[in-house]
Parts: sequence; C-alpha cells; structure tokens
Amino acid sequence: MILIISLIFSLLSFSHASVLDFCVADYAGPIGPAGYSCKKPSKVTADDFAYSGLGIAGNTSNIIKAAVTPAFDAQFAGLNGLGISAARLDLAAGGVIPLHTHPGASELLVVIEGSILAGFISSANIVYLKTLKKGDVMAFPQGLLHFQINAGKSSALAIVSFSSSNPGLQILDFALFKSSFPTPLIVQTTFLDAALVKKLKGVLGGSG
Amino acid sequence: MILIISLIFSLLSFSHASVLDFCVADYAGPIGPAGYSCKKPSKVTADDFAYSGLGIAGNTSNIIKAAVTPAFDAQFAGLNGLGISAARLDLAAGGVIPLHTHPGASELLVVIEGSILAGFISSANIVYLKTLKKGDVMAFPQGLLHFQINAGKSSALAIVSFSSSNPGLQILDFALFKSSFPTPLIVQTTFLDAALVKKLKGVLGGSG
Amino acid sequence: MILIISLIFSLLSFSHASVLDFCVADYAGPIGPAGYSCKKPSKVTADDFAYSGLGIAGNTSNIIKAAVTPAFDAQFAGLNGLGISAARLDLAAGGVIPLHTHPGASELLVVIEGSILAGFISSANIVYLKTLKKGDVMAFPQGLLHFQINAGKSSALAIVSFSSSNPGLQILDFALFKSSFPTPLIVQTTFLDAALVKKLKGVLGGSG
Amino acid sequence: MILIISLIFSLLSFSHASVLDFCVADYAGPIGPAGYSCKKPSKVTADDFAYSGLGIAGNTSNIIKAAVTPAFDAQFAGLNGLGISAARLDLAAGGVIPLHTHPGASELLVVIEGSILAGFISSANIVYLKTLKKGDVMAFPQGLLHFQINAGKSSALAIVSFSSSNPGLQILDFALFKSSFPTPLIVQTTFLDAALVKKLKGVLGGSG
Amino acid sequence: MILIISLIFSLLSFSHASVLDFCVADYAGPIGPAGYSCKKPSKVTADDFAYSGLGIAGNTSNIIKAAVTPAFDAQFAGLNGLGISAARLDLAAGGVIPLHTHPGASELLVVIEGSILAGFISSANIVYLKTLKKGDVMAFPQGLLHFQINAGKSSALAIVSFSSSNPGLQILDFALFKSSFPTPLIVQTTFLDAALVKKLKGVLGGSG
Amino acid sequence: MILIISLIFSLLSFSHASVLDFCVADYAGPIGPAGYSCKKPSKVTADDFAYSGLGIAGNTSNIIKAAVTPAFDAQFAGLNGLGISAARLDLAAGGVIPLHTHPGASELLVVIEGSILAGFISSANIVYLKTLKKGDVMAFPQGLLHFQINAGKSSALAIVSFSSSNPGLQILDFALFKSSFPTPLIVQTTFLDAALVKKLKGVLGGSG
Repeated sequence: MILIISLIFSLLSFSHASVLDFCVADYAGPIGPAGYSCKKPSKVTADDFAYSGLGIAGNTSNIIKAAVTPAFDAQFAGLNGLGISAARLDLAAGGVIPLHTHPGASELLVVIEGSILAGFISSANIVYLKTLKKGDVMAFPQGLLHFQINAGKSSALAIVSFSSSNPGLQILDFALFKSSFPTPLIVQTTFLDAALVKKLKGVLGGSG
Repeated sequence: MILIISLIFSLLSFSHASVLDFCVADYAGPIGPAGYSCKKPSKVTADDFAYSGLGIAGNTSNIIKAAVTPAFDAQFAGLNGLGISAARLDLAAGGVIPLHTHPGASELLVVIEGSILAGFISSANIVYLKTLKKGDVMAFPQGLLHFQINAGKSSALAIVSFSSSNPGLQILDFALFKSSFPTPLIVQTTFLDAALVKKLKGVLGGSG
Repeated sequence: MILIISLIFSLLSFSHASVLDFCVADYAGPIGPAGYSCKKPSKVTADDFAYSGLGIAGNTSNIIKAAVTPAFDAQFAGLNGLGISAARLDLAAGGVIPLHTHPGASELLVVIEGSILAGFISSANIVYLKTLKKGDVMAFPQGLLHFQINAGKSSALAIVSFSSSNPGLQILDFALFKSSFPTPLIVQTTFLDAALVKKLKGVLGGSG
Repeated sequence: MILIISLIFSLLSFSHASVLDFCVADYAGPIGPAGYSCKKPSKVTADDFAYSGLGIAGNTSNIIKAAVTPAFDAQFAGLNGLGISAARLDLAAGGVIPLHTHPGASELLVVIEGSILAGFISSANIVYLKTLKKGDVMAFPQGLLHFQINAGKSSALAIVSFSSSNPGLQILDFALFKSSFPTPLIVQTTFLDAALVKKLKGVLGGSG
Repeated sequence: MILIISLIFSLLSFSHASVLDFCVADYAGPIGPAGYSCKKPSKVTADDFAYSGLGIAGNTSNIIKAAVTPAFDAQFAGLNGLGISAARLDLAAGGVIPLHTHPGASELLVVIEGSILAGFISSANIVYLKTLKKGDVMAFPQGLLHFQINAGKSSALAIVSFSSSNPGLQILDFALFKSSFPTPLIVQTTFLDAALVKKLKGVLGGSG
Repeated sequence: MILIISLIFSLLSFSHASVLDFCVADYAGPIGPAGYSCKKPSKVTADDFAYSGLGIAGNTSNIIKAAVTPAFDAQFAGLNGLGISAARLDLAAGGVIPLHTHPGASELLVVIEGSILAGFISSANIVYLKTLKKGDVMAFPQGLLHFQINAGKSSALAIVSFSSSNPGLQILDFALFKSSFPTPLIVQTTFLDAALVKKLKGVLGGSG
C-alpha cells in the first residue's frame, strides 16, 4: 500500500535534469558574463557549498601589516550565480587595507575582533569615517574608494561580504604603482610627482 | 530597378549571425547561471517557440488527487532566457497541491475550470486566503509558502505562470519526507513528532 | 507554561513594520521607475492579491472581432513589483489581435478554447508562425512584433502572461493611424501610401 | 594663484544635488518595489552607514536556545538599495535555528565561534548537510529550506549575509503554527496530524 | 629591501585566473542568455576594447539615403556583458531611418552634424516629435517605435547608444515587406492594402 | 460609419492612466533606489525627452584644459529609469580628464574630433591603453579607473555614454585632495607623501 502511494505521489514530481536552484562552478567549462558554467547536478555535493579558506588567518607579516583572504566565486564554486561573496580582513596592530574599490559590488563589513577605522569617499568628495568596535557593521556603497585601518593596539579581524559573486578588487596603489602604467601618464592624470611615482613603483614592483 | 533598390536597401540591414532577440535552449551545450546555451539561430524554427505539453490533463489518480505539469525552460526550450514560464494544475474533486514554494519566482494563477481555494503565508506569518472561481486570478509573491485546493465538487484546472524561466519548486512534504533528511534533524528543526515523521517518510519514500 | 514559551519564542521574530515580501500598489502615492508606491502592510488583505477582471469575456462586437483584457499592475494592485502580469484574449470567429509589441516584456500564450494562428517576426526578418490548438503554449520574445488570429470557426480564448508587471502594449495600427502622427512623416518613415494612411486614420480616429 | 586654480578646477565638477552613489532610507517617505525613499544627501552622515545592532548577543534563553538579530534595510538605513544585508545568529548549547527560507535572497554564513551543523534541501529533495567549524563558510541558494544547529557543547555564533537589502525570513513553524492558518487546511496541505498541529499552535500561539 | 617588500606585498593580491572586471566575447565559444563566452583574460589586449567601425561613414547611396552602422557585441567584442552599445547614423540630404524598434534597449541619440527630426510613439499612441540640432540629445524609451529624418539640407550624422550590449533592431518595413510574412496575414493584422503590401514586397524583396 | 468603427475599435485600447513606457523625472517628488518619481504622463511633452546641454562646448580654460558636461538623469529628466546617460568631454590641446571611476556604470566613448589617448586599469593591475582617432570607440568596463588625454595638437571632443541613468563620477584627485580626507589617513592608505598631499590639497581646495 505504501509503495503504491509513493509511486503515485511521484507523479507530482518534476524531472530534475535541468537548471535548478543553483549553479556550482565548473571551472573547466566556458565562462560567460553571468559567471562560470554549472557543474552537473548529479556531481554536486554538500562540500561544494562549504569553504574553509576564511578560517585561516591571513599572513600580516608584510608592509601593510594586513591581509585580505577572498571567498569569491573563483575560490568558492558554490557561490557562482548566487550574487553574494565574502572575504576576511586580518589587520595586525598598525595594519591598513589601502584605498581600493570593488567595481561591481557594495560591501558590508562586520568587525569580529578589535577596532577598525573605516571610511569611504562619495562622488561628491565627502568622506564618511567611522571607528568601529567589535560587532559593528559598516556599509560601503558600490564602486566607491574606501579603506580600513586597525584602530586599536591589538590585531583586528573583520568579515566582509559583497553584493556579487565576483565583486572585483582594485587597489589604488597597485593600479598605479604595481602595474605598467607609464609614469608620465600617471603624472598627467593624477598630478602626483614623477619622483614619488618612481619611488613607489620601485617598492611595489611597477614598471613603465 | 526593383532588384537594384532591394540590393541597396540591404545596406541598412545588420549582420545577424549573432546573439539576437532570443536564446532557444541547446540542451547539449553548457549551462550557466543565466540559463542554457543558445541553439544556433539558423537551426531555430517556429516549433521551438511552441509547446504542447500543457494540453494534456495531468493524471490525478493519486493520493493528492492532483497533478502539476510544468512548461519551464527544461521542458520548453524556447523559454530559455525569456524570464517567464508556466504550468498547469489539475485538481480532481478533493485534489490538493500541497504547501510549496518557488525559490526563484513569483506566480500568477488563473482558474480555467472549477473553483480553487488558494493561499499563501507571508514572512509576517499572515495567511492570505481566497476562494477563486473560474476566470479569477491570484498572485503569489516570490518564495512564500502557498497551496491550492479544489474548492468545488468537480475537477478544477488552473494555468499558472512564473516570473522566471526556471522558477524551481520545493514541495514542503517532499523536502521533509521524500528526502534523506535525517529524522532527528527534522524533529529538531521543525518540532514535529518523530513518530509522525517516520510515518510520513514511509508513505512518501523518504529515508534517514 | 505555554504562554511563557510563546513569549520567549517571539524573541526570534523580526519586527515587520518594513518592506517585506510584496509591495501592493498604492495608486495614490508617487510612482517610480520600479513601479507604484506600496500600500501599508497593515492595510493589505487577501483581496489585494486576487483579481476577477479576467473572468469576464471581452466584447468582440467590433471591427477586429477581438478584445484584450489586461491584468497589469495598473489594474491589479497585487502585481506591483512582482515582475509578472497577464491578460485574456477573446477572439470571435474571424477575430484578429493586430500586429503589436510589448516594449518591456516577453509573452507566454496558452490557448484555453479554440484554435489560434500566432506569429512573431524577429530582428532578422524571419517569421515564426504556429497554429495552436487548445492547451498549446507559445512564447513571444521581448519587444518583437507579433499577432494572434482565430484559426477556427468558433470563438477562441487565450490567457497570456508577461515577464513584467507592466509590459506595455503598442498596437502598430494604433501607433500609426489612431495617433496624431503626421501623415507626411508616416509616409516618409514607412513607405506607405498617403491615401491609405488617410483612409486608415479616418477609420481609427487618427489626426495629422 | 592657488585660489584661481581651485576655482577653475571646479568647472570639472558635477552638480551633486541629485541621486548619487547611495540612497539611505528615509523611513518617513513612501516605499516602492525597489526599497525606501532616499534621505536628502545633505542630511546623510557617516552614522547612516554604520550599525551597532549586531554587536549585542541575542537572548538565547528561549525554547530554541537561539536568536536571530537582523541588520536588514528596515533596521540599517544605509543598506537601502545596496543589495546586501546581514544578521547574527546566536546559538546556545543545544540551540537551533528552525527550518526557514529567505524568499528573496541567497545566504552566506560564516562561523565566528563554535561549531554549527547546517543544511538545506534542494527542489530535487536532496539534503546538503555540513558540520562547520570556526571560520568555515556555507552558501544557501535563494529560497530553499535550510537550518542551523549548534553542533558543539558551547555556544556558537555566526554572521550571515544576504544578496538583498531585504531578504525576508519565513520560518516554517511560525508560518504553520504561529499564524491563523486554519488547522484543517494545514492538515490538507501538509498531511500533518490535526492533533499535532493543534498542540504546536498552542505552543507557538497560532489560531484557527 | 625593495624586492622583499614587493614580495610580501603581493600577499595581499588575489589570484586573477577567474571571471574579473570584463568578459570580452570569444565568438567561437557557446552563447548563453547573458551573452557570448569570455575570451581568456590572458589573451585580452587593449585592442579588444576599441573599435574603429564607427569612424567610416555609412553608404547613403540608397533609397532611404541613410545608413546605420552598429557597434553591438556582435561587432565589438569588448562590449559583451557591459550593458551598453552604440551605432552611427548617416543621413544624406533627404535621408530617413524608417520606423523601427529596439526590442531590448532604450536609446540615446546625439546629433554630431546637421539637423534631425526624430520621434517616437508611446503605448498611449502619443507622438513625441523633436527637431534636433547639432549637440542635441534625445532619449527613446525601450521597445517603442521611433524614426529619424534629416531635417536639414546637408547631410546629418548622429551617434546613438543603447542600454544593452545587444539591443536588437526591428525595422517595421523589413519585418513586413522584406520577410516571408504571408500577404494575407499582413493584411489581416495591419489592415493595409494587399496591393500595397505586394508592391512594397517587390521593392524590398519580401516573399509570401 | 467611420465614427462607429472607431468607437468600437477603442474597446481594444487599454486605460493608460498608469506606469507606462517611461518615467520622466519629477524632481519635486521623492527619490528611491531606482531613481526619481515619475512626472504625470499627461504633463510629459516631447521636450522632456530632449536635452540641449551637450551642444555647448565646456570651458577648458582651466588647469586640466578639459571639461566634462553631463547629461545624467539629474540634468536630463527623460533619462530617469531608462538605464542610459551621456556626457561630452572637451579637451583643449594638452587637456586631460584625470583618473576617475563611474561607480555604477560601464562607459562607451566615441571620438568626435581630434585624437585621444585613453586607458583603464583592471583589477589585475593591467593597463589597457589606446590612442583613438576620430570615429574610434572605446569601452571602459564598470567601476575601473580610467582617463582620457588629448593626444593631438588641436582640441578634441568625445561623446561618452553610460550603462546607467546615474553612473556617478569619482575623480581620484578630487576624492583625495578636494575633500576633507585627513592627510594622515591619506598617507596611511595610499603611501603618498604628506608634503605632496598637502600641496595638492592646497591646489584643489581640500582640507584636513
């Protein structure tokens, strides 16, 4: 009797050999404007939806005393097409995440440990600055220059999330001084000093 | 003269060997977050835009005395990328479409025959109930639990449409009792009775 | 005991005095690019999500022997912001829905009664024609010229749905001949005959 | 000289008395399908982009030994229109966030403290379960039933973020047993036992 | 020292072997609803983001004395997925761009040389007409019939841009008279004269 | 007879007192995340869809020998909600549009006069540079730093369009040196020299 019922019941069920619910990235397939190709549903497991990369503190033994560890669709296949991603920010004492933008996403930062001074600058050249303590949240509207600085004496940790599976990250200093952006063009388009530009290129490995 | 004119006129025309107007699903190609790959335009015919599957009454000789027949992008290739899909609901006397959600779409129901009692529950736990007669329309906002019950003595038929080519369908009882969702976890996360859970799993073919 | 539990339990609940789940149109409020203002949730009832206008056959005693009855957000407040809408098409014997477009939506047609010859024309000037019988479905990609003709000897009825709450409707003949589009400009931009344009303007009430 | 230069330079600057960069919620204005009205830019301060509500542990002295504290656009004005939001989950030992959905958003969970067993069920009735430790991240695709359970012996804390400023939250037990959903309809649409439904309604405060 | 610093600094940098910033069309890959497959980032050069096709005047030695030269994603690979495209309109004295629609995009026209009379017709059958001089801009809302006519005595040039990488183009006369749209169906769905339809089909090369 | 026909025919027509086709900005109404409130359709005229502000050359008698003249929704009401906007760039000999981003839009540039050296920098710190001549088009993907420099000896003119009605504009030098961004924070987040920062603030009018 039970067997019969469950047999009949299944008439209601849909065939599921199709685009459904999620699109875990198949990194071997073609990529399109909306993201990676989808892994076959039959090959998807719970592991595809979990990621342990944010559990490891970033190495802050560097000049900025900070590290950004991303969990974007390129690292975490389960995020593909979901319109969300995350990263962890580790800031040792004195640590700084330099001025940067995310070209395709708004950001939400939650302070997990320590204290962080964060800010962004609007198109109207207004600076919005906040000193955040543990548990505080801050929003950074899409595409605007922003930064985070450890505001305390011990290390700080923040989890940030983004309104895109692939928010992008453009760090100002890297764009200018770790690229092949020709020094004369930098000078012309930023009014910075050629000597300074060259010095910073030396530090960051830029050319041109 | 006419030949010359039509020749010249064609200078205005675009080359059309490209993404244009529609993207009929090529089920053999890779799938991405936005849907199936597109069939070559030269292979597309009028048949790709028509579907006859909703013309056949679903088999309601089952425990719920009801059937759902989908015309989603997985069944109807011409819908791929168009942001719309449909289904037919057959409800014999006493028929019920059990509580369910469409994770990615709002729904619009039109009663074609008979009378249907339909309802949905909001995030605020408010129940919106309506008894619909032939010709009545009801909207079900995206992602909310809803159901349809034959409110008459004869069979009822409804056509539903969705604001997505791939709305998804999660039937509450199937998610709980036709899956491998472990009984202890169901009990813990729903406060249902373990005995009842096991009984319903027996009926619907669930495990765990 | 039960009282205490339900009291405590409510700690989990959110405050719901906010944008949630749906945005039933408040026709008295300002309108924006995304639709009408939302009615206060406390004033929303199940009636807002139901609409009976499609239950009444359109009057086909006219020159085209056809009628379109819309259930767009302007008629059906509950659809506001949901990204879906519908209409019914009544076609008496010989009835025709003239060539038209929906500027902002794809369309899905389901034949409820009778037989319909429908078609659309692509940007590549290819005509996709299908004769549809009861239960058949046809998709019309966004923004393309299309039409429906009663293909049988008795009346036909179709339900159409759209991938927008506000699909728009531009009927070619009305745009040309029921408007104040100056005849010389029509002639210049369509190569139609001035005499014919004037005749059709006379029939349809156009000026210019 | 400097004055002259800065005067001239400003010719490049845009007038900024307009929609720009962000739309901080003005809760007193009308609401539309895309969110709240925008506060005047001149009244916006850095405080609008920060929120301290997630810094306070939720009260878990309740039957589920858990609490959800949201930072949605209804609580955090700066999120309006940004397409992202967050919440904190507090789970005491034995704590459970019962089965629920977010009708309009995908979710990303980061474990901050303790260990969490989380899972979701797909439209294909497949259960994806993971035991997550501190630092682990899990994705929950839009609109699917999911839950979180404290998997350790001490309290657990998670930060979740959503791909919408207004994700919504439908808790299954509340929808069924804390609402006025009539018991006969619940029985009909879920196959649950009337006696159990009544008992749970007693606990949770439902009626009908 | 500099070497060490730049080495450490790179810890902050992300791996970039993924979907990032842009998706230049790889015309050889599969196409999906969101556009073409992406070229490998390592193969992308500045040339992919530039297009010289709009620098060449269209040939206006034809019956309409006009030419449209598109820079859509099918011609200009760098536009794929960016949601924008362009075209140039050349209008010799007396030139006309006949009535047409873009099924998937709004249009913005800038007059570069000469004077243009442009107009569009709304769903409400209202005609919006403007005579534009050099430097004037006009907006054409998505999917509506519109046209452009040289309003001066010398040639005119306009640059138009679209809110889509693939706006589509449906020219009314081509849809009717350069296609295989059967004459009886045209007559039935437009009320045009069969004789006129046949004459125009003769001119434009239509059949049926 | 004609009167009767046109009367009957109008049965097909929809009531148009609603959201239709466009949403011309009513600057006096509330603003939401999707844009300005809509002007009443009955008050909309053809003038709302035309804008003459781009016909006037910008004043380039300034330090950058350049000017940007926007036609965004804040200036051009007819663009509201259409997802497109434009601007003109005037570059005298030696003129430079300094490094900047548009936080919410991709850009398409068409050279109308002269020659322009343009470039953008990707998230991967790759610089894409092109020297463009009259008629050339260049695409700048959303949110990335880019610039334009007059590459010739005479003045240059370009028309740029954006994939948003409100693209925003963040000029790097203005964000840093024309704002109240405190000099110590600039130094910390950019590694620029405090002395240089102060000098540039002096030139551009920044404080802090």
